Amino acid sequence: MRTRFDVGCVIPMNDEGDIFRPGTVVFDETGIQYVGSPEACPAVAERTVAMPQGILLPGLLNGHNHAAMALMRGMADDSPLFEWLSHHVWPLEARLTPDDIYLGTLLASAEMIRSGTVGFADMYFAMDAVAAAVEKTGMRAWLARGLVGNEDPTGEKLAEAVAFCQAWAGKANGRLQTMLGPHAPYTCPPEYLARVAEAAKSHGLGIHIHLSESRDEMDQMATLYQKTPIQLAHDAGIFESRTLIAHGVYITADDLRWLEGIQGGVISCPVSNAKLGNGIMPYPLLKEAGIPVGLGSDGAASTNNLDMFLEMKMMAWVQKLSGHRPDAFRAMDALWAATRGTAQVLGYDGGVLAPGRPSDFIVLDGGRPHLTPEWDVVANVVYAASGADVRYVVVDGRILLDDGLITTFDEEAVAAEARKRQALLAKR
Amino acid sequence: MRTRFDVGCVIPMNDEGDIFRPGTVVFDETGIQYVGSPEACPAVAERTVAMPQGILLPGLLNGHNHAAMALMRGMADDSPLFEWLSHHVWPLEARLTPDDIYLGTLLASAEMIRSGTVGFADMYFAMDAVAAAVEKTGMRAWLARGLVGNEDPTGEKLAEAVAFCQAWAGKANGRLQTMLGPHAPYTCPPEYLARVAEAAKSHGLGIHIHLSESRDEMDQMATLYQKTPIQLAHDAGIFESRTLIAHGVYITADDLRWLEGIQGGVISCPVSNAKLGNGIMPYPLLKEAGIPVGLGSDGAASTNNLDMFLEMKMMAWVQKLSGHRPDAFRAMDALWAATRGTAQVLGYDGGVLAPGRPSDFIVLDGGRPHLTPEWDVVANVVYAASGADVRYVVVDGRILLDDGLITTFDEEAVAAEARKRQALLAKR
Repeated sequence: MRTRFDVGCVIPMNDEGDIFRPGTVVFDETGIQYVGSPEACPAVAERTVAMPQGILLPGLLNGHNHAAMALMRGMADDSPLFEWLSHHVWPLEARLTPDDIYLGTLLASAEMIRSGTVGFADMYFAMDAVAAAVEKTGMRAWLARGLVGNEDPTGEKLAEAVAFCQAWAGKANGRLQTMLGPHAPYTCPPEYLARVAEAAKSHGLGIHIHLSESRDEMDQMATLYQKTPIQLAHDAGIFESRTLIAHGVYITADDLRWLEGIQGGVISCPVSNAKLGNGIMPYPLLKEAGIPVGLGSDGAASTNNLDMFLEMKMMAWVQKLSGHRPDAFRAMDALWAATRGTAQVLGYDGGVLAPGRPSDFIVLDGGRPHLTPEWDVVANVVYAASGADVRYVVVDGRILLDDGLITTFDEEAVAAEARKRQALLAKR
Repeated sequence: MRTRFDVGCVIPMNDEGDIFRPGTVVFDETGIQYVGSPEACPAVAERTVAMPQGILLPGLLNGHNHAAMALMRGMADDSPLFEWLSHHVWPLEARLTPDDIYLGTLLASAEMIRSGTVGFADMYFAMDAVAAAVEKTGMRAWLARGLVGNEDPTGEKLAEAVAFCQAWAGKANGRLQTMLGPHAPYTCPPEYLARVAEAAKSHGLGIHIHLSESRDEMDQMATLYQKTPIQLAHDAGIFESRTLIAHGVYITADDLRWLEGIQGGVISCPVSNAKLGNGIMPYPLLKEAGIPVGLGSDGAASTNNLDMFLEMKMMAWVQKLSGHRPDAFRAMDALWAATRGTAQVLGYDGGVLAPGRPSDFIVLDGGRPHLTPEWDVVANVVYAASGADVRYVVVDGRILLDDGLITTFDEEAVAAEARKRQALLAKR
């Protein structure tokens, strides 16, 4: 079905830096057909949505998530990291069923769709359940089964992960993509990382891995291997396939030589990195080196809210803090990271609106008091808007949020079931 | 009129740390009559609001604002500070009429009410217009005319400010309170600060002042007077009256001796302090010294969004960053700062729900996906909720936001007029 949106403003995020005011977008299931001013638009549409105060932009791409952890939102919050993991998260995860994980992923998806996220990169377990949830919700996802080397002496789990990748890649009309997910160098010894790197190369798969997230990780890798996590991953052959590096807080100037020519890039998770007391990713260093930087939320158990508008704000705020200047990082840098940056890291051709590109976009209600007046629409989107301002979400030509209503599943039933499940999990 | 709220959870923020689940609050214009479990509630009410997923807590108090600057939201955003002020903000402020300021304050109030703020401390000019807006909106406010010493050689403006204070203090059924507002030590020389301090003492007025906000301010005061801004204010006699110190980013351990026994305290503005690249307020130092710390947004021209839920998040995030530990600052510390902390700084008996206290509170819709499930209701309120989750706002016993609708003025007309006025201001 061909659909037309007539809105107050379209920010296509193209290389030309166009902003159309007013603007029109026409799309169907095959992709975007028109982006520009309403007068020049030739296409006849079966449905037209008119929103004179609407701001239309590419849908946000969450480059690092553990979606099902939405079920653990706020659990033992503010605890020291190791206590939190070993006394709370890990024991609970050991009791999660695939059905819990399906439900948790739906819960996270309700939240993501409502706040303007069209796709996410996920690392978790029971990934068949996650993939089934993604099929249901209509979102895009890049899924990786998390691999812990110490728990996989025979390589059985790696083989299962490869089989998962092969089974689901390109499913759901291409909305589903798959990757390998060696968790981190402190849970995967170098030999195991090398086996994963080898499997990725031979099967043509990308890799999703946590690297250089915390001071403790840096210290541990230095002590054990006299390497930074980046060098360790490089030496294991990880970077010979497309790699999504989650966090990268402690990447150093020295590390840049190991990252030279990398496919993929770094996903910054500024809220998680602050909330866990880890630090601030060195954006200027990566930018200078030409390494793509995208944006992610991390799991809701540590981040609490998957709203990518919060992540854009926080990325700008911490980069300005660390640069000691208001112009150290601009609103457009944040919006770029959350759209084209994440797309670049994933090797995805979305994150930009142009004929032939995927029809993934969102529309905000720009008429609300906190988005008024409009001196600078990009500043309003990044610094003043929140996910709650999103009224429409379109993914792969399908409207997932229609004037504020989720169309693909019953979010109230999911939330009610999550409340029941939490009560059971707390007791189990 | 006696009104009763029956909700899923009441967080009264009392010293006992009570949480009532389910909970009931009964109030009228004279104050709160009951806070507790529904069964024990004896009061008969004329109206009952039932919200089984509702989370009821004291209304948030924004301790530092320049409300009318909402008209400049996003203007020349991300520019270096001096360029922004001298080429954009000051020239535009010179053209603002009292009517613009009335409108800007209404615009900011729509945003504040919608996001759960019940009262704010404001420093601006044409304050009669700000006071008139506060009368209209039904909010509480602590108003100070900003005084720039260099522009007041005869003390005429100081005299006008005192007259403003006397004219408006206690008006609007006590919702309006007034203070003196010497802008900052870099705009008010020591002799002028001493005159303001003297006027405050002789008229029994509190003082609202920007202190220790930026590195530049610290350097300038050191060069000119060989003092920190805190010592300078102390020596001018400012702290002999109740003082609201906005920002306090660069307060040092040495400064504590000048703050000993201070009435009032520090209002942290973590978003503004990050967005302008200034830094992080030393919360542990102030907490250790027993100095009250509240929370504020600063003006929307630099902060862009007046949502105090963003400020609570950012306060927690930057304090955890600066403490390098997730437990360096907890969700309850942020909620305390935004309610009782600001109240303490202002000398206000609100910010807590108990019989006889002011009936100022808010109710969130806790059933939304991003607030589900509920392992920790305070973590959900601080880390996961946003202002957009607020459904009811009650101030001084009057419902200002009723199931999502502002009752005291037409917010759409205000937003429409603000858009028109912006177009004119951009041309003037």
